Amino acid sequence: MNLSEYVDAKHDEHLSDLFEFLRIPSISTQSQHKPDIERAAHWVADRMRRVGLESVEIIPTKMHPLVYGESLHAPGKPTILLYGHYDVQPPEPLGLWTSPPFEPTVRGRNLYGRGTADDKGQVHIHLRALEAIRQLTGGLPINLKMLVEGEEEVGSENLWDFVKSHKKKLKSDALVVSDTSMLGLGVPSITYGLRGLNYYQLEITGPSQDLHSGVFGGAAPNPLTILSELFAKLHDKDFRIAVPGFYKDVAKLSKVERKALNSLPWKEKKFRSTVGAPGLCGEKGSTILERLWCRPTLDLNGIWGGYMGEGSKTVIPSKAYAKFSTRLVPNQDPREITQLVEKQIRKLLPKTVHLKFEVLSTGKAWVAPYHHPFFELARQALVKGFGKRAVFIREGGSIPFVTQMSDAFRIPCLLLGFGLPDENAHAPDEHIALDNYFGGIKAVAYFYEALGGVQI
Amino acid sequence: MNLSEYVDAKHDEHLSDLFEFLRIPSISTQSQHKPDIERAAHWVADRMRRVGLESVEIIPTKMHPLVYGESLHAPGKPTILLYGHYDVQPPEPLGLWTSPPFEPTVRGRNLYGRGTADDKGQVHIHLRALEAIRQLTGGLPINLKMLVEGEEEVGSENLWDFVKSHKKKLKSDALVVSDTSMLGLGVPSITYGLRGLNYYQLEITGPSQDLHSGVFGGAAPNPLTILSELFAKLHDKDFRIAVPGFYKDVAKLSKVERKALNSLPWKEKKFRSTVGAPGLCGEKGSTILERLWCRPTLDLNGIWGGYMGEGSKTVIPSKAYAKFSTRLVPNQDPREITQLVEKQIRKLLPKTVHLKFEVLSTGKAWVAPYHHPFFELARQALVKGFGKRAVFIREGGSIPFVTQMSDAFRIPCLLLGFGLPDENAHAPDEHIALDNYFGGIKAVAYFYEALGGVQI
Repeated sequence: MNLSEYVDAKHDEHLSDLFEFLRIPSISTQSQHKPDIERAAHWVADRMRRVGLESVEIIPTKMHPLVYGESLHAPGKPTILLYGHYDVQPPEPLGLWTSPPFEPTVRGRNLYGRGTADDKGQVHIHLRALEAIRQLTGGLPINLKMLVEGEEEVGSENLWDFVKSHKKKLKSDALVVSDTSMLGLGVPSITYGLRGLNYYQLEITGPSQDLHSGVFGGAAPNPLTILSELFAKLHDKDFRIAVPGFYKDVAKLSKVERKALNSLPWKEKKFRSTVGAPGLCGEKGSTILERLWCRPTLDLNGIWGGYMGEGSKTVIPSKAYAKFSTRLVPNQDPREITQLVEKQIRKLLPKTVHLKFEVLSTGKAWVAPYHHPFFELARQALVKGFGKRAVFIREGGSIPFVTQMSDAFRIPCLLLGFGLPDENAHAPDEHIALDNYFGGIKAVAYFYEALGGVQI
Repeated sequence: MNLSEYVDAKHDEHLSDLFEFLRIPSISTQSQHKPDIERAAHWVADRMRRVGLESVEIIPTKMHPLVYGESLHAPGKPTILLYGHYDVQPPEPLGLWTSPPFEPTVRGRNLYGRGTADDKGQVHIHLRALEAIRQLTGGLPINLKMLVEGEEEVGSENLWDFVKSHKKKLKSDALVVSDTSMLGLGVPSITYGLRGLNYYQLEITGPSQDLHSGVFGGAAPNPLTILSELFAKLHDKDFRIAVPGFYKDVAKLSKVERKALNSLPWKEKKFRSTVGAPGLCGEKGSTILERLWCRPTLDLNGIWGGYMGEGSKTVIPSKAYAKFSTRLVPNQDPREITQLVEKQIRKLLPKTVHLKFEVLSTGKAWVAPYHHPFFELARQALVKGFGKRAVFIREGGSIPFVTQMSDAFRIPCLLLGFGLPDENAHAPDEHIALDNYFGGIKAVAYFYEALGGVQI
C-alpha cells in the first residue's frame, strides 16, 4: 500500500476525527470562549501524541496557550518547523450560516464549518499525513517540530515572545505553514508572498451625552457625520490611500514577476462571482491580482454608533466607533504606518470632537525568493498528491508569524495552502473542498517523504 | 385657598401619582413593550375619569391605542382640544443613566426618568391642573376634549387617521399641547414654531456575503467605506445640505422676527455646556438659534455594519446600515424632500453596491401667527403661575400632530411647554425641573380659569 492508497483507505476516519476538532468553538477574540480555547489546545496535544510526536507540551502564555511536540530521530536529515493555529474567527452573523458554524456539515464536495479552512482543517491535514507515514513506515524520515498557536486571529503577540526566547529549541532548516489558499480548485499552489496587517480602532466623541436631534440638530457636532467625513477623506479619487507618506516604501513589482502573476490560471469571472457585488473597485493602474496581492489597502471592518434598533430614534449620539485595518506590502514598516495613519486622522478631524486612537495589532508583509530546493520538492509533492500542475502565487492575507520567522531564522518558509479564495475564511459558510483536504494529506505526506531523501 | 395654594398643598400627592405613570416602560418603537403601552393607556384613561372627564374611551388603532375623554358643560365658553402622548423613547444606552430610566428619582431640584419631560410629566401637569380646578370650584369653566396618543415617538400615523375621521367630535376653538421646552430655567415660554421631520433608513449591499479583508481587500467594494463617502457628500463646506432643490422652498426669516429671536434671554454658554463637545458646528450665515429653530438639518441618527465586538475581525461586510433624518422648516414639502434626498443618494452611490432606501416617517414644519387673544391669556397665565416674565419662542423639534391640526382645523395651537433644552428628552438621564412641573400645574390651571372668562 502506498501513501495515497493508505490515505484513501482511512477516508471516514480522517473526517470523523476532523469533525471532533471543528466542533470546539475556539474563538480567540471573545473572552467567554476561553474554556473552548483550552479544550482545543488539549485536543491538539492529544493528537500530536497519537501520531508519535514526543515532548508534547501545552505552553501557557499571557493569553492563549501554545501547543508543541517534536520527533527528532532522523540525524543528518532536514529539520522542519511546522506551524498552524487552532483558534478561529468569530462566527457572527450567525443568521447567514446555512448549517451551524460549529456543526461540521458536508454539502456536495465541500465541508462547511468555522475553521474548516482557517486553519483547523489544514492543521489536521498535517496530523493525518504524519499518521499515514508512521503507520506505513513505523517512523518519520525527517526531524519535525510542530507548533500550533491559539492567537493567530488576534495578532499572534505571545507566539513571537515564545519564539524569541526559545530560538535554540525551534532551530530548523525550513518553516512549513498550511494556512493559505490555492489559486483555484484543481490548481495546487505554493504561496511566496503575504501582505502585512495593522488593525486600528477609533472612538470619536462629540457631545458629552446623547442629544435630541430636534433640539440640538444644526449646531451640535454629530460624531457619526464626522466619522463618515473622516473615512471619505482617507481614499483619493483613484482609490489610493490619502495618508501622506503611506506609499513611500512600497516595493515596485519587477517586470518578470508582474508578468508571471498576471499569466496565472486565475479566473476573474469566478472572483467576481465570489464577491457577488454589482462591480469591483480598486486602485487605478493595477490589475485585480496586483491589487489583491501586491498593493496596500485601507478597509473599514466595522462601524457603529447611535440608534441601531427597530424603528426610529431622533438622537445625535455622543460617540461613534470604527474598526479598520491597513494591509501592508514589502517594504512598508508597520510601526511607521501606524504613526502616519494616526497623524493624518488627527489632522483631518475637526476640533469639535475628541479622538481615542488605538492600534490593536501590527504586522509586516513577507515575500520569499523561491529558489531554494525545498520549494521544488514541495511543488513535485503537490503534483503527486493532486495529480495536477502546481504554481507559485502570492496572497493578500497576513500571517505575522511567517514574516517574523523569516526575519529571525533566515530559513525558507513554505506556505502549502489547501484553502480556496471563496472558502469564506472569515465569513459565514466557511468551508474546505474535500478534494483539497484529502489531496493535501497526500501531498504533505509525499513532501515529508521526499525531504527524507535530502542530506543536510 | 386659591389655585396656587391648592397646588402647593398637594405637593406630595402630585409626585406620587406621577411616579406611578413614569414607572410604566411604554416604549412605542419596541414591539416587546406592547403590554406596557396598553398599561399606560389604561392608566391615562383612569386618571381622566378621576379628574371628572366623561365618555372616556381607549380607542384601538392599527398600532397603539389613543385615549380620549371630555367635559362639555360650559356653553358659550371656549372648547379646548388638549393633546399629549403617553409613549416614550427607548432608554438605551442603559449604562449611561445615573438612576434606572423607569425608576423616577429626585436629585436636587430635578426629577429624573424616561418620560419625565417628554411627555408624561407634561401630560400629568394638565391632569393635576384639572384636578385642582375641579376640587376648588366643583367643575370646569371651559369645554375640554383631551386626547392622549401612544405613537408620538414613532410618527403619529394612526392619530391622524383618527382625527380625520372624527372631525366633528374633535371640533374646538384652540389646540393646547404641552410637549415642548421653555427657553431656559425661569423663562416660561410659548412655542410658536416647530421644525418638521423626515426619518429615513438605508441598507447598502456590496459583496453578497461577508468577505476576508486580506483575500478580497483592494478589489471588493466595502459598503462601510461607501456609506462614509455617501454621507460625507451630503453636506457642503459651509455645512449646507448638498441635495439639489433642498432649500428652494425654505421660508426666509423677516427682519422683525430675526431680531426678536436673537434678542431672547438665551444663554449660549449654557447651550455649549449642555452639548459638552469641544465646539459647535453649523450652517454658515446663521446664528445658533436660527440654526436650531429656523434652518433645516440632515443628521445621522445611527450607523452600523461589520464587526462591532471585542478585539479585531478582518472582514469586509456585505452590508452597511444608516438611520438618518432631515429636520424641515416652513415651507418645505416633506414628500418632495424625500424624493430629492433619495434621488441624490442614488446619484451619489457608485454602481458597485445595491441600495434599499426606506422612509420611516415624514412631517412638515409649523409656525403660528401668535396674535390670537388666547396667546395673550396664556402668556399672562404663565406669568401668574411662575411669577416670571414669559416669552414667545420657536423650537427645533417636531410635533407632527400640531402641523396637521393647524392645517385641518384652522384653529390656534398653543404650545405651553414645561421642559428645558438640557432635559435629555431622547437621551440618558432625561429629567424635568420640579419648579417647572409645579409652576406648570399652576399656570395651566390659571389659563383654563382665564379662558372661562371668554365668551365664544
